Amino acid sequence: MQNFEIIDKDVMGRICRIYTNHGKLETPAILPVVNPNIPLVDPVEIVKIGAKGIITNAYIILKTMGDQAVEKGVHRVLGIDVPVMTDSGSYQLMVYGDIEVSNSEIIEFQNLIGSDIIVPLDVPTPPDAERSTAESDLRMTIEREREAAKKRKNSLLALPIQGSTYIDLRKLSAKEAKKIGGDIYPIGALVPLLDSYRFAELCKIILEVREVIKVEPIHLFGCGHPMLFAFAVALGCDLFDSAAYALYAKDDRYLTPFGTKKLSEMNYFPCRCPVCKKYEPQELREMNKSEREEILAKHNLFISFQEIDAVKQAIKENTLFELVESRIRSHPNLLAGWRKIREYGDLVEKYDPKIKRKFLYCGIESIYRPAVKRHIRSLVNVEFEGAEILVSSDFGMYADIYLRPVFGPVLYQMNEVYPAGHAEVPEICEIEEEAIKLAVKNLYVLMRKFHDKKFKIYVSKEWAKYMKDIPENGELHVLS
Amino acid sequence: MQNFEIIDKDVMGRICRIYTNHGKLETPAILPVVNPNIPLVDPVEIVKIGAKGIITNAYIILKTMGDQAVEKGVHRVLGIDVPVMTDSGSYQLMVYGDIEVSNSEIIEFQNLIGSDIIVPLDVPTPPDAERSTAESDLRMTIEREREAAKKRKNSLLALPIQGSTYIDLRKLSAKEAKKIGGDIYPIGALVPLLDSYRFAELCKIILEVREVIKVEPIHLFGCGHPMLFAFAVALGCDLFDSAAYALYAKDDRYLTPFGTKKLSEMNYFPCRCPVCKKYEPQELREMNKSEREEILAKHNLFISFQEIDAVKQAIKENTLFELVESRIRSHPNLLAGWRKIREYGDLVEKYDPKIKRKFLYCGIESIYRPAVKRHIRSLVNVEFEGAEILVSSDFGMYADIYLRPVFGPVLYQMNEVYPAGHAEVPEICEIEEEAIKLAVKNLYVLMRKFHDKKFKIYVSKEWAKYMKDIPENGELHVLS
Repeated sequence: MQNFEIIDKDVMGRICRIYTNHGKLETPAILPVVNPNIPLVDPVEIVKIGAKGIITNAYIILKTMGDQAVEKGVHRVLGIDVPVMTDSGSYQLMVYGDIEVSNSEIIEFQNLIGSDIIVPLDVPTPPDAERSTAESDLRMTIEREREAAKKRKNSLLALPIQGSTYIDLRKLSAKEAKKIGGDIYPIGALVPLLDSYRFAELCKIILEVREVIKVEPIHLFGCGHPMLFAFAVALGCDLFDSAAYALYAKDDRYLTPFGTKKLSEMNYFPCRCPVCKKYEPQELREMNKSEREEILAKHNLFISFQEIDAVKQAIKENTLFELVESRIRSHPNLLAGWRKIREYGDLVEKYDPKIKRKFLYCGIESIYRPAVKRHIRSLVNVEFEGAEILVSSDFGMYADIYLRPVFGPVLYQMNEVYPAGHAEVPEICEIEEEAIKLAVKNLYVLMRKFHDKKFKIYVSKEWAKYMKDIPENGELHVLS
Repeated sequence: MQNFEIIDKDVMGRICRIYTNHGKLETPAILPVVNPNIPLVDPVEIVKIGAKGIITNAYIILKTMGDQAVEKGVHRVLGIDVPVMTDSGSYQLMVYGDIEVSNSEIIEFQNLIGSDIIVPLDVPTPPDAERSTAESDLRMTIEREREAAKKRKNSLLALPIQGSTYIDLRKLSAKEAKKIGGDIYPIGALVPLLDSYRFAELCKIILEVREVIKVEPIHLFGCGHPMLFAFAVALGCDLFDSAAYALYAKDDRYLTPFGTKKLSEMNYFPCRCPVCKKYEPQELREMNKSEREEILAKHNLFISFQEIDAVKQAIKENTLFELVESRIRSHPNLLAGWRKIREYGDLVEKYDPKIKRKFLYCGIESIYRPAVKRHIRSLVNVEFEGAEILVSSDFGMYADIYLRPVFGPVLYQMNEVYPAGHAEVPEICEIEEEAIKLAVKNLYVLMRKFHDKKFKIYVSKEWAKYMKDIPENGELHVLS
């Protein structure tokens, strides 16, 4: 039985369907964390607000309900009928150092309560741990994952990937998990990286894991801030879970796809969800704390599901690069984090669809999109008949090749074709220097390939400034 | 009587209150255009959705209701009690070339129906018109504005600014209007620029007009797309009006702050307004056209008011630069349009508040913010005691001056002070080259000012690459 299928793709992100015992779970999806005993928002309400699935904690259920939960099953405990994933108590293990359950017990318990997605008791190693700790933790995680694979019944199995901030250990963890064979691969122990905005490291870890886990769904454990969804999905993540909606609400904080706002500093709600439509910030501030918390948590859920829909719509229309490149403005570390994809050009290219409808330049990171590399490569197969090739930066003039920022040489016959022919790119005076230099470099590559041809190049004086060290077969004319 | 007051400011934008005969109108605000005879959405409903004011057409009311409207008053005709602005028929004049009313008649009619903001019958000249046409149109506009100033009763008077794409004529129009003395200054005949995404020209026209109209509210006639609100407010616009919500809905198009989507291409709604919360895109597509139009128009209104609130919240917290710099990603022409502010650095600086809480770098346009220029200027008044000044790019090292992208030299004592001390800026490896070059240039400016001091400069090799042509009083050491 195939447990999931990919419906749509863009960048390294996908819309998938994961088939569970409680129906399909369409991803990207965020699974809100529900504490079965003290939910801030009732799970029934969370589903009404838009959750496609829920994650809850099997360890807490075991300790507080035991056999009663086995009798009812986790879905009836929560009162819902959507897919339920259960965590194993690893988080408690990380926080308290020890817990009163074995791996085999908690797996069996998850089977018994009818969880749709079960997780072994992996050992989370926080970032910057000693290497020896990360290694021994990982050994234990792998052992427990093997045990889980043997003890699983008919639930889907999630095999967490650990290894702290050691990239080689993360890759090893992913390889071992894949060998064992899970249905979903959560990347664990990232919360400290998220909390300290270490997004460049986050980017690297996700990409390295995605490279090993080629197609199966990846879950980003503990990531629940909507400012990260577009970024993480574009890097290949499918599932998120988080208590963020509740934790932030308890701290009087309001989530947006561009970061967090303090309720105390808000005069206007930049949202029209049922909460924000109904209340003014001042009204919320005047409520008693528990009422306010629940209402804020609801907004935080609405905006999270909204952002997931924005990401899905972007995948559908192949504008996920554009969405990410706007969302990363929410913090310079996110900008810097995204720019790490430069180092993974080949990997991103393997996943990103070749043909899209349009290419909108959104800033310097647009030049790292695979479409730009592919454009350059497509020039290699070109043939020119005459001995002289006319190049111009002026689209009004007849030429064999036009010169554009970002892409560089665009052949006459490419003018109607994606990407360069469907690209909206600012003029040379309004674009980053790197986008101009790349264009010139690409022209020179073409000139060197056709070293037996003569290139007559007519460019504006703005272009001429960047055209130093022109190859010998070039002849530069500055247009006035 | 003072007709308006400024409550808050950021960049060149403001939160104002305009006092009308029907209460205060808080700006930035969008006044939805209502056709009194065939409203797509009932004005009462529009106000419920969030409109703080309405604009309707006095010429159409005159022609279709005449005395009946005078008897009832425009507010009762529309069934609402919020501020109402009336347009004069200029739009009809532009479209049909001629209309059956004189300036003096339409002003008097607006007085009689109790409009809160009246507009004379100005003569709109479209972009790229013949200069002689623009001049003669403008002469007539000015004449009619003089007449309006005489005939106005107790309504607020809006004096449109015309002049086509001739910047000098726009300025002349603004000067004359200001001399005549209006309460609000709408910039007219811009729709063709908006429709063809000529945002650089739009930026120039707004800034040039704002420079003349120093403090009074500016209205951007015909601008109603939420993708432009942050941009236009940051340039100094206060009021918008538009039929966009209805026109786009009729064409099955869905507005977002990042551009327009076709309903036919939507699978997910990236919004949680009452419309998007209730329906799936497919359900809307299956409705009959008139029902769908009204529902889409309502979403378009909700998202427009939401975006106005996002802009107001950004002004409140002094993050309007950050908001604009994310919003301009919706189209490369908007990006290029915004980058025009480089040419108006002194003007922007006059308006932008000096102290803010933080400076988040969002891309290369962040270096055009006045905070960067002010930082450089603040260095001029610095004094150094010793003969040697220690500069370092390594924050872990003791130094008199630290080197940061964008700002360049940041004195030890500035490390806790806005802007440089409160700035989040990517590291040198992840930032645009211009941001590094500017930093180096600023350091050299400082070195030349203190030409009698010796600068010992310790930088990483990434910095060293950019530190050519170092002034004679500098001594470069590359950190390993």
